[in-house]
Amino acid sequence: MLVPALYCWGAGIDGAATFGVAAGITGFVAGALILGSRSELRQLNVRQMYLLTALAWVSASFFAALPFAFHGLGLDLTDAYFEAVSGLTTTGSTVMTGLDTAPEDILVWRALLQWLGGLGIIVMAMVALPVLRVGGMQLFHTESSDRTERVFASTTQFIRYVMSAYTLLTLLCTVAYVLAGMPLFDAALHALTTLSTGGYSTHDASLGRYTGAGIHWVAIVFMLAGALPFVLYVQLAQGKRLREVWQSQVTVYLAIILVAAVAIGAWLWLDQGRSPEPALRHALFTVVSIVTTTGYASSDYMLWGGFPLAIIFVLMYLGGCTGSTSGGIKVFRLQVIYLFARAQVTRQIMPNRVVATRLDHRDVSTAVASSVLAFVGLCVGTIAGVTIILSVFGLDFMTALSSAVTAIGNVGPGLGDTVGPAGHFSSFSDAAKLVMSAAMLLGRLELMTVLVVLTPFFWREW
Amino acid sequence: MLVPALYCWGAGIDGAATFGVAAGITGFVAGALILGSRSELRQLNVRQMYLLTALAWVSASFFAALPFAFHGLGLDLTDAYFEAVSGLTTTGSTVMTGLDTAPEDILVWRALLQWLGGLGIIVMAMVALPVLRVGGMQLFHTESSDRTERVFASTTQFIRYVMSAYTLLTLLCTVAYVLAGMPLFDAALHALTTLSTGGYSTHDASLGRYTGAGIHWVAIVFMLAGALPFVLYVQLAQGKRLREVWQSQVTVYLAIILVAAVAIGAWLWLDQGRSPEPALRHALFTVVSIVTTTGYASSDYMLWGGFPLAIIFVLMYLGGCTGSTSGGIKVFRLQVIYLFARAQVTRQIMPNRVVATRLDHRDVSTAVASSVLAFVGLCVGTIAGVTIILSVFGLDFMTALSSAVTAIGNVGPGLGDTVGPAGHFSSFSDAAKLVMSAAMLLGRLELMTVLVVLTPFFWREW
Repeated sequence: MLVPALYCWGAGIDGAATFGVAAGITGFVAGALILGSRSELRQLNVRQMYLLTALAWVSASFFAALPFAFHGLGLDLTDAYFEAVSGLTTTGSTVMTGLDTAPEDILVWRALLQWLGGLGIIVMAMVALPVLRVGGMQLFHTESSDRTERVFASTTQFIRYVMSAYTLLTLLCTVAYVLAGMPLFDAALHALTTLSTGGYSTHDASLGRYTGAGIHWVAIVFMLAGALPFVLYVQLAQGKRLREVWQSQVTVYLAIILVAAVAIGAWLWLDQGRSPEPALRHALFTVVSIVTTTGYASSDYMLWGGFPLAIIFVLMYLGGCTGSTSGGIKVFRLQVIYLFARAQVTRQIMPNRVVATRLDHRDVSTAVASSVLAFVGLCVGTIAGVTIILSVFGLDFMTALSSAVTAIGNVGPGLGDTVGPAGHFSSFSDAAKLVMSAAMLLGRLELMTVLVVLTPFFWREW
Repeated sequence: MLVPALYCWGAGIDGAATFGVAAGITGFVAGALILGSRSELRQLNVRQMYLLTALAWVSASFFAALPFAFHGLGLDLTDAYFEAVSGLTTTGSTVMTGLDTAPEDILVWRALLQWLGGLGIIVMAMVALPVLRVGGMQLFHTESSDRTERVFASTTQFIRYVMSAYTLLTLLCTVAYVLAGMPLFDAALHALTTLSTGGYSTHDASLGRYTGAGIHWVAIVFMLAGALPFVLYVQLAQGKRLREVWQSQVTVYLAIILVAAVAIGAWLWLDQGRSPEPALRHALFTVVSIVTTTGYASSDYMLWGGFPLAIIFVLMYLGGCTGSTSGGIKVFRLQVIYLFARAQVTRQIMPNRVVATRLDHRDVSTAVASSVLAFVGLCVGTIAGVTIILSVFGLDFMTALSSAVTAIGNVGPGLGDTVGPAGHFSSFSDAAKLVMSAAMLLGRLELMTVLVVLTPFFWREW
């Protein structure tokens, strides 16, 4: 909060007081909590880690909401909380309109929230999840990629490496945006939300505001950079060869993106009569934006017809690689499902054949498969539940369904006129906004982390 | 085909010649095939069973299409094949309009196709699948409910029992419809498509044509009867007590129906201002019609608003119990997913606890879980693929998505103005109709049976 406050002071605009007050409240509560629990809890047990992980995101979002509520933007506390959750979870759905004329310090705050949220996700995957793995968390065990930890002497060292890579890529992205013709303010803020695959923009038209092809290509490259496993960059920086550190999920991911983009590009070119270059560029931009769960828009895909929309809807579920800032179901889980579906087919013809289910030279056990089954089941169930709850508040079916998917996948925009790339979520009722906030947090915490805490079983037998 | 031909002769209407020609062609081909392969293949191996199962449905649909193509209804061969596939798979999607004035013999043929298709599904589950299970088909092994076979001395005897139960229930349903005020012709034809959970009607307005509450209640009861495991009826008829033969999938199934119907009924009453009795009746009718994959309409649910639509969309995936005439994902698989999700949550808190995954006193192994994972993954992947393909042919997103779901789930109607309960599929292009036909067959054969045959692996190493 001190960063936007300093920005106000430096740029000579109002707003420093707002951020100062918010920082004061946050600092006071934080100080009280630190002083009040100083002598206790040196070592956390598994249940406490669960509680901490879940509550950290819920309460951090509350304090992050304060500047939105205090700034006289016409946002009530629900709006402010929605905006803060959408920021910290790197979703990018917004209830704010008139971004082009919004106070600069608020735009800085939104971009910072996403950048910190993106970092938070990577750190959570490195610090919290390995500890929970000790508690037998098969799912996260497989997810946070075994090899990651063994490579590094200590977690702290690894986090330092990842933070450096994240910061360096953000600076590179800023420079690239500026070279492509974006003003520095926009470039810096968009870089913060590109690497975090967040998608908050400084314009209502998002990156559609800029017609230059260069800016779109910069966004495509760095959105992708944010959706790949960060451990890759660190290993490359340490002098490892690309072939050694490559993960098969990256190959699958890039292949899916390429196929989807070429299909949509060809459709825009041949069926909708656009010129080939902009058609392919907008198709690739949109596919990358959706599948990395960023949510930028270069063009309103609601106007492209049924075929692109069908692909975009399917991609919304997908998400990025594990160990990145992206949300969604993740490529890794698709690979596990494919492995077991293929093995199943083989076994049905040749019952006595031993079918290996291996991914990147590691065995994938049926226990892992049943974890993935549990996750995908929970995911589909949660989407169905959130869709039904949202539709109770009067939303039409496509708005409710795509809002549920976009929130749980931390994507950003949905489908339809209300919540599509040209729309926003301000017309939602307060109750619907709170449901959306909960869905974004659920999705960001990979469902399990929250649902475990919500079971009666969690609170029994301590 | 001789039944509608006889009907024409008895009722003194044209059409006997059409069905006679179709019967002649079918009989000639069948005779040639029987005579040509008389001395071969006394015993089928697993691969041949797969081929037989898949090809039987594809080719039977072709011959079933002949009367539609020959009857001068303005249906081309694609339309005729679509209508026949939709009939035999008990889907109930139609490309015919003007049912109220359609030739009676064609209406008889449509109803007969669904009734035979429903019987075919139950028999396939009893004859083909156990043999394929010998080939290690874990999935079907668990699906076709172990206890079923052991109870009966021979498969033939069991099929005879099931056929009797099916026929008896159809007769009961006819009588009930007549007592509720339906003319005999309509009553008999609707009984054939109610028990088979098919949904072909003799009126464009489906059962919405009849305003009497009694007819709706009769339909509700017998649609449910068609979606429960038929082995239940046989066991009850043999004098077993209900408590002994009850399966937990039935409890879950009825609970889901009740909750969904009450929720939609309350919405229609409180939000849409309808009177309580018709609101609850139409809600229950629609929920049962969708979730049993019948597809009758008593009222156009597209006009009910977003909330009922969201529930109906979710229910479309669900389907009925195993061992019934219903399609869809099936309650049993939901139970397996729930079991493993719950066990996963428990293990994450208490890693050393042994969590039993039992269903109806039988252990559900992780191998079964990985089969279900494979099935659900294939199901979601197939829905996504069919949606994308259909949207290439110019369908809007909701029409494409709901058509894919309704075809693969063998439900019947979709969502939206074109393919909703008040619509039909005649506006689809020929290519889209063929894709829909393939999707209906895929869904009816539980995906695996077809996909196994389509793998290169199946054709290697004979």
